[in-house]
Amino acid sequence: MRNIKLVIQYDGTRYLGWQIQREGPTVQGMLQERIAKITGEQVSVIAAGRTDAGVHALAQTASFKTESALPAGTVMAALNALLPEDIRIMGTCDMDAAFHPRYDARGKVYFYIIANMPVVSPFLCNYVWKIPQNLDFDGMCAAVSLLQGTHDFTSFRASGCGAKSPTRTITRCSVERIAVIDFMTEGLSGNFLKLRIEGDAFLRHMVRNIAGTIVEVGKGKMPSDMVLELIKARDRRLAGPTAPAKGLFLERINY
Amino acid sequence: MRNIKLVIQYDGTRYLGWQIQREGPTVQGMLQERIAKITGEQVSVIAAGRTDAGVHALAQTASFKTESALPAGTVMAALNALLPEDIRIMGTCDMDAAFHPRYDARGKVYFYIIANMPVVSPFLCNYVWKIPQNLDFDGMCAAVSLLQGTHDFTSFRASGCGAKSPTRTITRCSVERIAVIDFMTEGLSGNFLKLRIEGDAFLRHMVRNIAGTIVEVGKGKMPSDMVLELIKARDRRLAGPTAPAKGLFLERINY
Repeated sequence: MRNIKLVIQYDGTRYLGWQIQREGPTVQGMLQERIAKITGEQVSVIAAGRTDAGVHALAQTASFKTESALPAGTVMAALNALLPEDIRIMGTCDMDAAFHPRYDARGKVYFYIIANMPVVSPFLCNYVWKIPQNLDFDGMCAAVSLLQGTHDFTSFRASGCGAKSPTRTITRCSVERIAVIDFMTEGLSGNFLKLRIEGDAFLRHMVRNIAGTIVEVGKGKMPSDMVLELIKARDRRLAGPTAPAKGLFLERINY
Repeated sequence: MRNIKLVIQYDGTRYLGWQIQREGPTVQGMLQERIAKITGEQVSVIAAGRTDAGVHALAQTASFKTESALPAGTVMAALNALLPEDIRIMGTCDMDAAFHPRYDARGKVYFYIIANMPVVSPFLCNYVWKIPQNLDFDGMCAAVSLLQGTHDFTSFRASGCGAKSPTRTITRCSVERIAVIDFMTEGLSGNFLKLRIEGDAFLRHMVRNIAGTIVEVGKGKMPSDMVLELIKARDRRLAGPTAPAKGLFLERINY
């Protein structure tokens, strides 16, 4: 039995997230359906992280078991020929039978693109979180640095999260100004911020709840050092709202 | 009676084009519905050019008549608040009653983004025409320069085109390599070409048929100077196929 690893890029706009469900199209569902056409097998594609509806991925990692003799490169070409264009396979390789994309992951990197402007280009609307108010950049930088380290993140955990322990380690959290060059207009445009979070693993909605809280700091609704109190309080009701899915990208899985 | 001009940017992916129809959402339909909410009037929004389903616009120009006393800036803010995010009003202004967006247009500029690569980022797939084969850039440049001038463009005119005369003037046609900076990865990526066409007016599908023909030249299926023979032949069957809508942008209307 072979164990094939997939590195997948997707635009999450049209999908109900990673995990297969009856209600509509999902990334996992699209992949499993195409793999069935290529290998004739009903496989289960396991991802390193299940992304929510509307969340994008630059390098989601997943794997599936197969008896097929097709070379990994052929599997990639066949999948890219059959998949819709908003899901692309960037790489495939044969792994040891023991490889598991989630259990073996040492860390994950997510980022939010925040468009700090009153009007967002229609070509970017599915990829950014729009905040029209002025944001306190320095306050946001101070707040994110306080999140780094090993903490009980109960205050940033969604109800229904199935993780046994609420303790996670954020190895790096940063906010930076980025230049966005819109290839449609070829002009440098607007005031975009990138909120990047790297950690060993994340609780359900933890990244979205952290982003929602950091933006509250940016809006001046919360002092930056209140982040430490929020962590101590272990109470979801005190932290900021859950940020919208569409500005969120799974950047990378570290192994 | 006021005559309000709108400058509109839209991502055409979700729409059945500009012109209102029963079968599904259109840009004109979205605008007329929102204007009715704002002014209480059933207006007709007239555009400079009707774009096909999937075609995008950076600065479509349109106008409508209204008895409303709302300042033009308020109309813009109200429309942007009510419209879906993939349609944005970039400007509104009061015009003379005689202004007509189509009849008064002196020229239009369209461009195609051609992604000359085997795999296109899922974030760009709705905005480019993917051509995996190597393209002869110099041959394409030679071909587009031959299109400039006043010609009978019957060979590039779709059946069903209602224009009385098939003669149009292309004031400028160019192909250039452009750098696309993907804000998701912040990396400079791939080999993108921009095919830009500026003219006084265009026949139905003329831009798409010209783009389809220029790409045939790029693929080496047609010598670049055959463009002149195509113009002379006045036969739609001889020119290249109609290029897909999704890589096409209406850049600007000149008045």
